[in-house]
Parts: sequence; C-alpha cells; structure tokens
Amino acid sequence: MNKLAETKRNEIKSAEIICVGTELLLGDIANGNARYLAQQLANLGIAHHYQTVVGDNPMRIQRAVAIACERARLLIFTGGLGPTPDDLTLATLADFFDEPLREREEIVTDLSEKFAKRGRTLTESSRRQALLPKSASVLPNPVGTAPGVIWEPRKGLTVLTLPGVPREMKAMWIETAVPYLHERGWVNGIIHSRMLKFLGMGESTLAQQVQPWLSGENPTVATYALGGEVKLRISARAETIEAAEALIEPVATQIRSKTGAVCYGQDDETLAALVGELLLAQRQTLSVAESCTGGGLGQQMTAVAGSSRYFWGGVISYDNRVKQGLLGVEAPMLELHGAVSSEVAEAMASGVRDHLGTDWGLSITGIAGPGGGSEEKPVGLVYIGLSCEAYTVSERHQFRADLDREEIRQRSAASALNLLRLALIKQC
Amino acid sequence: MNKLAETKRNEIKSAEIICVGTELLLGDIANGNARYLAQQLANLGIAHHYQTVVGDNPMRIQRAVAIACERARLLIFTGGLGPTPDDLTLATLADFFDEPLREREEIVTDLSEKFAKRGRTLTESSRRQALLPKSASVLPNPVGTAPGVIWEPRKGLTVLTLPGVPREMKAMWIETAVPYLHERGWVNGIIHSRMLKFLGMGESTLAQQVQPWLSGENPTVATYALGGEVKLRISARAETIEAAEALIEPVATQIRSKTGAVCYGQDDETLAALVGELLLAQRQTLSVAESCTGGGLGQQMTAVAGSSRYFWGGVISYDNRVKQGLLGVEAPMLELHGAVSSEVAEAMASGVRDHLGTDWGLSITGIAGPGGGSEEKPVGLVYIGLSCEAYTVSERHQFRADLDREEIRQRSAASALNLLRLALIKQC
Repeated sequence: MNKLAETKRNEIKSAEIICVGTELLLGDIANGNARYLAQQLANLGIAHHYQTVVGDNPMRIQRAVAIACERARLLIFTGGLGPTPDDLTLATLADFFDEPLREREEIVTDLSEKFAKRGRTLTESSRRQALLPKSASVLPNPVGTAPGVIWEPRKGLTVLTLPGVPREMKAMWIETAVPYLHERGWVNGIIHSRMLKFLGMGESTLAQQVQPWLSGENPTVATYALGGEVKLRISARAETIEAAEALIEPVATQIRSKTGAVCYGQDDETLAALVGELLLAQRQTLSVAESCTGGGLGQQMTAVAGSSRYFWGGVISYDNRVKQGLLGVEAPMLELHGAVSSEVAEAMASGVRDHLGTDWGLSITGIAGPGGGSEEKPVGLVYIGLSCEAYTVSERHQFRADLDREEIRQRSAASALNLLRLALIKQC
Repeated sequence: MNKLAETKRNEIKSAEIICVGTELLLGDIANGNARYLAQQLANLGIAHHYQTVVGDNPMRIQRAVAIACERARLLIFTGGLGPTPDDLTLATLADFFDEPLREREEIVTDLSEKFAKRGRTLTESSRRQALLPKSASVLPNPVGTAPGVIWEPRKGLTVLTLPGVPREMKAMWIETAVPYLHERGWVNGIIHSRMLKFLGMGESTLAQQVQPWLSGENPTVATYALGGEVKLRISARAETIEAAEALIEPVATQIRSKTGAVCYGQDDETLAALVGELLLAQRQTLSVAESCTGGGLGQQMTAVAGSSRYFWGGVISYDNRVKQGLLGVEAPMLELHGAVSSEVAEAMASGVRDHLGTDWGLSITGIAGPGGGSEEKPVGLVYIGLSCEAYTVSERHQFRADLDREEIRQRSAASALNLLRLALIKQC
C-alpha cells in the first residue's frame, strides 16, 4: 500500500458522532450526549474527527449519513429511537442502506413486559420500537424502552444507534457497545487522563512551575483555567488503563510535590468531600454560619453521602437579627464594623461553633451583588471566618467586579472550604 | 424556476454552525456555544439544519467547509481565533477560499492598546490575530483580544467567525453579527417562544388538558418533561417579537386559566423568585429549617438579588442535636417518630418560625440516600413542613427509587417552595 492510501485508510478508521434531534437545532437542550461519547471515545483511544447534529428530517439524516460513510467507519447515532412519529433514525438508516425493517419478537415481548410492569398495555406506536433492520443485532436498553442496534450495513462500516435520553444512552453504551468495540478490535490501546485541581494559584504561575512536563509526549500535560480554579490534565496513551496509570502516577506525584497544598485534589474529588475526609480522619466535626451564600456551603458539605458523620449543620444568618439571635454576634459590633467585616466573620464562626458544639465553625459574610455595594465595601468583598478551640481567624477576599452573584457565592464557598482544608492539613 | 430547484434553493438558504476545537472532540468541554447560537438562530427565524464539530486540523476544517458550502449559505464558525499555533480557523478559511491574509493596521493598534492596559507588550503570536482575509470585514471583539470576520468569500455565501470563549462569542454575536444579519435581510420574521412551567402534574395529564392547542400551527404548543417538572412551550412565528407575543399571549392565558395553580411560572422565572414576589407583595417574611437539603433551600431563596427583604435565614439542622438545640424539637418526639416524620417536619417549621420571628417557617426532613433508608422509611421519603400564625401543616413525598441523592434534594426543595407558593396564593 502506498503512503497516501495508508494515510487515507488511517483517516477513515475513525468514529463519527451523529446526534439526531430538532431540539438540538433549536437549542432547547445542550448536547451532553456528544460530550459524553467524545470523552468515552478518547478514553478508548478511538479516533474521532467529526460530530454532526441534524434534525428529525429523513432527507437530511440521509445526507449526513452519506457524508459520514465517506470519512468514518464507526457511526454512532444518538436520538430518534423512541415511539413518536418524529423518531426516524432507524427507518431512515434502513432506507439509506436499502435493507427492510423487521419486527423482532423478543423486543415485542420485552416491551410488553416493561409496559405491564407500569400497568399499561403496549400501544401500536410503542410497538414500532421493535422494528429493526433485518441484519442488525439488538443493542438492549436496560433502563428504558427503546432498544438500539449494532449493525454492519456494509463491509467495514459499523453503525451503533443509541437513544437520546442520557441515562439510557450511557447504560447502553457502557453495558453493550463498549464490550462490542473491544471484541471487534476497535480499542487498540487507550488514552487515560488524570485532572489535578488547584486553588490559590493562577494558570500562568502554575504553567511556569510545571514547565518541564509541558513538553512531554507521553504523558502530555496541559493547563486550563475555569471558574476561579486552575486545572492540569495529565494524559497517557497505553495498552491498558493500568499501563496508562503507571505513566501518569510519577508525573502526578512530582507535580503535586512541586506545587504543594495549592493542588487540592484530582478528577471528580470535590473540596467538600476532601474536607469531609480530613474531618473524618481527625474525628472532628463542623458547623457553618452563612450570610451571602445563604446555605450553599451547607449544601455542598451535605452533597456528600455520609456527611452526617462530621457535619452537624449550621445557621443561615442572612438577616442581622439572626446573626444576633442564633450566633450571638453583638449589635455594637455589627454597627461599628458592619455585617461584612473580619470581626463579624470571626464572631459568626466562633458563635456557630459554640452554639452547635462542634470542633470547627466556618463562616461566610460578603456582598454578592449586584446591589448592596459601596465605595468602601464593593460588590465581591467577602470575609471568611474559621474558628476552632485553639484560634479564630478570618480571611478577606475581593472577587472581580465582572463576576455575577452566583459566581461570587460559588467562589466564596470554595474559598471557605479551602481555608478549612489548609487548616486541617496543617494540624495533621 | 421549477419546484425542485425552488426547494433546493430554500433548503440551502440556511445557516450551519461549525465549531472548531479538539477540546470538543475530546469531550473536555460541553458545546455550549452551539446551543447558544442555535437558540439565537431559532429566535431570529433563520433556518439551521446542521451543526458540525471538527478538530484543530486544517485538512479536516477544509473538508467541513466544503460540505457546509453545499448545504448552507451562512457559515457561523466558533473557535480557533486565538493567538496559539492551534488557532487555525482564519488561515484555513483563507486557504480554502484562495484569498491572502493581510494584517489590519487598526487591529494591531487595538491589540497593542489592550495589551498596554494589562501592562504587557504585544507578542508576535498575538499579533497574528490581526491577519484577516483581504476582503473580509472586521467583527470587533469588545471584551477580548481575538477579532472575528464578516466575509463573503463567494457570491451568496456569508462567513462569520467568532471566538470559542463564550463571553466573547456572545458579545460579538449580539453587538455586531445580529445587526448585520438584520441589515442583510437574513432575519425575515422571527420565532419567539414562551415556556410555561408546571409542578404537581404529569406530562400526559397536561397534554390531555391542553389537547386543543397541541394541533395549532401558529403558535405551536408542545410539552416536555424534565427533572420532575413539566414544561410547555408556545412558539409563534411573526414579523416582530411584539407580533409573536400577541399570538402567544391569549394561548398562554387560556392554558394558565385552564391548568390553574399547577402552572407556577414561565421562562426564566424560578420558584424561589416567585415565592419571593408573593412574600414581598404580602409583606411577609420567611425562615427555613433544612435537614436533608443541608442549605439548598436557603441557597435558592438567596440566589435572588434583594431576597434580604423577605428572607431572614434559617437553621441547617443536619444533626438531631441541632434540631433540638436551635429549633426546639423535643427528644421524645425524635425518638418516637424518627427525624424523618410529619411530626418532626412540623416541629422544625414552627420551631424556626418561632426562633427567628418570621411570618412563615418552611422545613424539609428526608432520606436523600443512597444510604440511610429502611423498609419502613425508604430512600426518597421526604416530609415538608410549613408553619404560619394560623396553622402548621406537613406534606409527605415519596420520590422514585431510581433518583440520585442530588435529584431527591433538588425535588425536595422544589416541593417545599411549591407548598409555600400555593399557601401564599390561597391567602391572597
């Protein structure tokens, strides 16, 4: 084979994601399915060069399929598998590849059982979901009704159809499509990544510190900045996830040791979960006093299952009367320094700790805007208070003026959790 | 012109969104830009049949452009306009349409000024952003550095390039691209929608109630179910937003009057904001006592700017000691009925109302899972308590077993806000 033909062959040995649904063209929903499948393909090391979105229109779906067949060998469809008249994916594909649809007995049985469980009988329109192209295999749907197909309508071309409902799409992908792709030799090595997450360091400073690794080839290292956090992705290509991990681990360890405590965690770890683990390890308990975040800090702490072991609760002291009544912040202090001050932040933290009897008290008071700011105390000014038996401290943050109310509240909660995290690490 | 040619002409008089960026193919980020532009095109009444995502690869970008030219007359690009070597959109387009790039003096000046403001000098790589195709107009970037183009590389074909950074993309779209599209006759009438939102009614029941409107042509009416809520979209096509509103308004009014209080609001209105308006109108105040939601209810109430006028705060009583200490729930009651019970929900609601001195007290206690459930009290069992001067009531909810912790917490908070909303409406 000459070079050019080989290049073309490699080029074409790739997947294309085709999302079918007029709701995507109207912008009614975000295309989360494309993102999920893209991540999955990257992790499996399957090349993927194009994504197409097309509406519920047979002619346009066919045109998109014709183009995709020219540039990819694995076509992954989402959407258009349900029972309504605008669910056209399979009928259109059968038409395009000139293969009749045939009703599958086993699907009719499965659908009837699923309907019976809900106390309903199978309708004609729902029964349409049992019509699959003659030579296609069933891609079962363990969590919903509409099944998909695994189909080779032409030699060297594989078609997978998945529903648009994310929960069903993911279950079908993981349980059946991925094992099939492994079996058929699509998965030749994988790409695996780890994401390190940083708070309290800018992207350029981080990039300077990790300079030597940025030019690495396997693993590769790249930095991102998003929503007040900086992230660093370490990606390795290898035969197995374990082999990729073995490439990633030493680099991650070196970067974490070089950057220290500003790296708060990795991948899906949340600040609240990490703080929870530290509290649990030290057998300590936490309560919170929240003003501008209005409960957001407590919500994050309790988003972690099992948080009742270390999180007792707190006070949402949005109004100054609550700061006085439930936290014991004194009126003269509120008058002298104002509710948004280091003094009040500290009084709130020690107050909630005293009243609830926990080891730690963590507080937030600030101006989330858009109103309520002044020259002296502008929108984005936030004080965090932290109190334990040995000490009570506070920290001042001035968030950027162009952040909106929710961003300021979000970053305030993250800053508070990070302050506690650093204190817990120090006393380890 | 014959029918077929006319159909083809109409078909092609549409837009295609082309998002350039390897990060999209890796699934690193969700394609929020495509959704935003899709919504915008729908609102402007510009037909839009395909979206394409392609990586930072000149050959593949060119192939995508070749295909898009065949099926659309307005190509809207996002991404690949920055200063780094993988920002290739404009160079690739110039190459494809065989037109040289030329450095624009005014952009160099603008970039130099923007850099100077940040105390930096313009680098060679950033200066690349001033290179635009010879015949293209500048699409200015009011909030970032990379400008875009408005370009007619061929007769009847318009190319818009926008950056990938959402904030910059949106500003450029709204400030320059939309006026241009109006001026050039792309906007022939608009499509405008209103979304009605329902709580406490299933999609099929709602569909039955609004049956007569579902077959309407202008406006069209469609129902959706999402995350425990049911939504109904009324869309009208008209010359102006005002004319569309005039078509939508009577249908919306009829549907709201037919469905009653289960329709809680429309468009961007949130339950928390609507409850806030009702409290404000009645000059009443609210406090909350939260167990399983851990602060989420307070967070939603305080997400509304100005909520301090009616929301005083509350107690996060995650641990039973807090229910006793700060809310006055008595130990024997907790022992007899358990923390998740109508008795405790009511005691929490009246307790927080008493202790904080507000007109209303609203409480949530439940089992969000995944642990903590029992046969008698399974995961998803939630009690809402509501207390005012005249009465204290509670409501029992059993959420579906397949919902996760966050969904149960989210629906609990929505149910609580809805209970208060209905009580406030009743006393109006």
